[in-house]
Amino acid sequence: MINIPSTAQKRIVIIGSGFGGLELAKRLRKSNYQVVIIDKNNYHQFQPLFYQVATSGLEPSSISFPLRKMFRDYDNIHVRVTEVESVDTQKKQIYTTIGELDYDYLVIAIGADTNFFGNENIQDNAIPMKSVSEALYIRNSIFEDFERSVTTPDYDERQGLIDIVIVGGGPTGVELAGALADMKNFILHKDYPELDTKEIDIYLLQGGDCLLKGMSEKASAAALKYLKKLGVDVRLNTRVTDYDGEFVSVKGGDKIRADKVIWAAGICGNKLEGLPENTLTYGRRLKVNRFNQVEGFTDVFAIGDVSYMEEEKYPQGHPQVAQVAIQQAKRLAKNFSCLVKEKSFEPFSYRDLGSMATIGRNLAVVDLPRFKFQGFFAWVVWLFVHLLALIGTKNKIFVFLNWLWNYLTYDQSLRLIIRPFIKKNKTKHKNEAT
Amino acid sequence: MINIPSTAQKRIVIIGSGFGGLELAKRLRKSNYQVVIIDKNNYHQFQPLFYQVATSGLEPSSISFPLRKMFRDYDNIHVRVTEVESVDTQKKQIYTTIGELDYDYLVIAIGADTNFFGNENIQDNAIPMKSVSEALYIRNSIFEDFERSVTTPDYDERQGLIDIVIVGGGPTGVELAGALADMKNFILHKDYPELDTKEIDIYLLQGGDCLLKGMSEKASAAALKYLKKLGVDVRLNTRVTDYDGEFVSVKGGDKIRADKVIWAAGICGNKLEGLPENTLTYGRRLKVNRFNQVEGFTDVFAIGDVSYMEEEKYPQGHPQVAQVAIQQAKRLAKNFSCLVKEKSFEPFSYRDLGSMATIGRNLAVVDLPRFKFQGFFAWVVWLFVHLLALIGTKNKIFVFLNWLWNYLTYDQSLRLIIRPFIKKNKTKHKNEAT
Repeated sequence: MINIPSTAQKRIVIIGSGFGGLELAKRLRKSNYQVVIIDKNNYHQFQPLFYQVATSGLEPSSISFPLRKMFRDYDNIHVRVTEVESVDTQKKQIYTTIGELDYDYLVIAIGADTNFFGNENIQDNAIPMKSVSEALYIRNSIFEDFERSVTTPDYDERQGLIDIVIVGGGPTGVELAGALADMKNFILHKDYPELDTKEIDIYLLQGGDCLLKGMSEKASAAALKYLKKLGVDVRLNTRVTDYDGEFVSVKGGDKIRADKVIWAAGICGNKLEGLPENTLTYGRRLKVNRFNQVEGFTDVFAIGDVSYMEEEKYPQGHPQVAQVAIQQAKRLAKNFSCLVKEKSFEPFSYRDLGSMATIGRNLAVVDLPRFKFQGFFAWVVWLFVHLLALIGTKNKIFVFLNWLWNYLTYDQSLRLIIRPFIKKNKTKHKNEAT
Repeated sequence: MINIPSTAQKRIVIIGSGFGGLELAKRLRKSNYQVVIIDKNNYHQFQPLFYQVATSGLEPSSISFPLRKMFRDYDNIHVRVTEVESVDTQKKQIYTTIGELDYDYLVIAIGADTNFFGNENIQDNAIPMKSVSEALYIRNSIFEDFERSVTTPDYDERQGLIDIVIVGGGPTGVELAGALADMKNFILHKDYPELDTKEIDIYLLQGGDCLLKGMSEKASAAALKYLKKLGVDVRLNTRVTDYDGEFVSVKGGDKIRADKVIWAAGICGNKLEGLPENTLTYGRRLKVNRFNQVEGFTDVFAIGDVSYMEEEKYPQGHPQVAQVAIQQAKRLAKNFSCLVKEKSFEPFSYRDLGSMATIGRNLAVVDLPRFKFQGFFAWVVWLFVHLLALIGTKNKIFVFLNWLWNYLTYDQSLRLIIRPFIKKNKTKHKNEAT
């Protein structure tokens, strides 16, 4: 059993410390509830910058923040690091790897994971990028393969080692492709004189007919233009059908040889056992009403990527982005205080603050509700917005200094292949995937 | 075969990019030799600060530096990342995981690894700290165990999780114990309100009768005083006989329960197959003459921790410290240029510049040839010496800022358990221990 002191306060259990879960816990810091926030990691990870970890521009620690540090001054907030396996909505209990826990209110904020659309080949061979650990793995893989390529005389084999295929033309795919192109253009020829870096091909394969679907036409057009300018081989209307670890097969029969395929083509909600099937909908998201109550429940809530809410303006549900999660968390926190005051809940409605993506050095696209712009100014805006969104003063300072340094030196300097040390017999420290 | 362009230049192959190998390669940058520097990592690691990585004060990247970046501007230097398996001194070839390589001169700078003195139990269960990966593993283990302890009602079991035993009273053990004590005193009670941090015991077990053997009596006395002041349970004349993963057994029958035992009790030279047995001496070091030539060879050299050289002033050989490796590298570089000028070698003699160790916040001991001092001033000196010794301007800046931040906030902020992501079927990216 997870030992949390039992108090007179009602207990809210939040599963997940992403943008939604974290915002909610923060808003409840001074509330009259006992809050238990549970995550399998002891830190919050800032997803929008994973691609910079993967391309050795930032350290994981710069975009991660320890949960305990965040809540250390608040007696009503309790942090537990464990994996939640299932929930019993009758008993109002959750079951974790370190025991069960009672709740009065449950908030499911477990986010989404990579969606391989059921293709096991791709799942086994492609690399996802939904955690700092996976981003670090990508970094290591890229540089291990470059090192290997230096002593690989066979042309085709070498191509497989140095070429990189990114599947998915959303923000993740676009930003990763741009960062890799910058690395190729500014750094690799210096680091690997033995390599003809012109031979390095960066592919961005997009099933649809445009990049950054969901953003403005101007934005996706600019993104396409920028990426081509950086030398990325962007292929639209190119649906990947298979990947055996050596060759990427695309619809139409084309094949691309690549040892590294980074899969950013889709997400689906993370799973929590114990909820009725009918609560699940498209993309394995949990159907919620305008109060974020999971269909059929008054004491079980879902927010962020794992939830699916329809409103007039969003008949197909909200986009799965940080802003929705954060705004839902804020609304839910307010509703919890309504509960205390015995006032009735207010419905959530999403306010689109706009969206942005960076393509590379001095290149970004920004869509604001009022106006849309691209290029250098957009890039500066992108930098500031992300800097401010980061948690922790130290992270802000260190990320800013890293960016400044990398910008001035044209050099992401963290090209280290730091392989994990594993103590085979210490199963309790098993290095499971996160 | 490792493809290195063959030139008219004689080829010097350096195995290892520690203090010795790196210094030598640097000194040969503008020489008339072709230099191949080989390491199993693609970076140089700054050993003196491993303990700060283990105690979440620094990121691995701050004390590691990419080899390729260091030598990118020098055509006669070639970097290869691979493990050297053996050498054939007849054929003048080395054999690595990526093929063989011819040499005209071979320099063995492979350093030393943890010495478990043949005790397999200890080897299987204790944690070494001779690489950044191992240091990271210690960091993860410490915080995984703290998290686990929070939900462990059983007292003895909890003690096992939160107590930490360090074996070995040399600089590594002393500095690690001090840093852990600082963490206990300044941070843990804030991060883990559920824990009675007074229950956390940090043991430092030393077989001999003093700490920091090799330094002055004043220094070891001060180190002992400081550690006790910080609350470390220092036990002298305490030889560890066994560790089964749960209990540490010490000579005399005493037992200490601890899930984590960090082994800093000794080192022995790393192994390179293919050299005659008679070249090995105590501590698995390679016997070398005053020119660092391995006994019986004129074209095979050894420098640093893996070498054993006697001089008048050091009849039992030199201490295995960075300064010896660096000075031997400098001398050897000069001798290589003597070779070009057909002048004769000059013998190496070690100039002791002094030694120092930091115990904790504001506490360090410094022995200089002329005078010895302890306390705050010693601590400042320690900081500067190590800052200057770090490689890379960025590393210097970021380490300095980290130290400043940690000093002002009383907080090493990197308390993240970032578990490696492992792609099971991708054997080529197997996360082998480094």
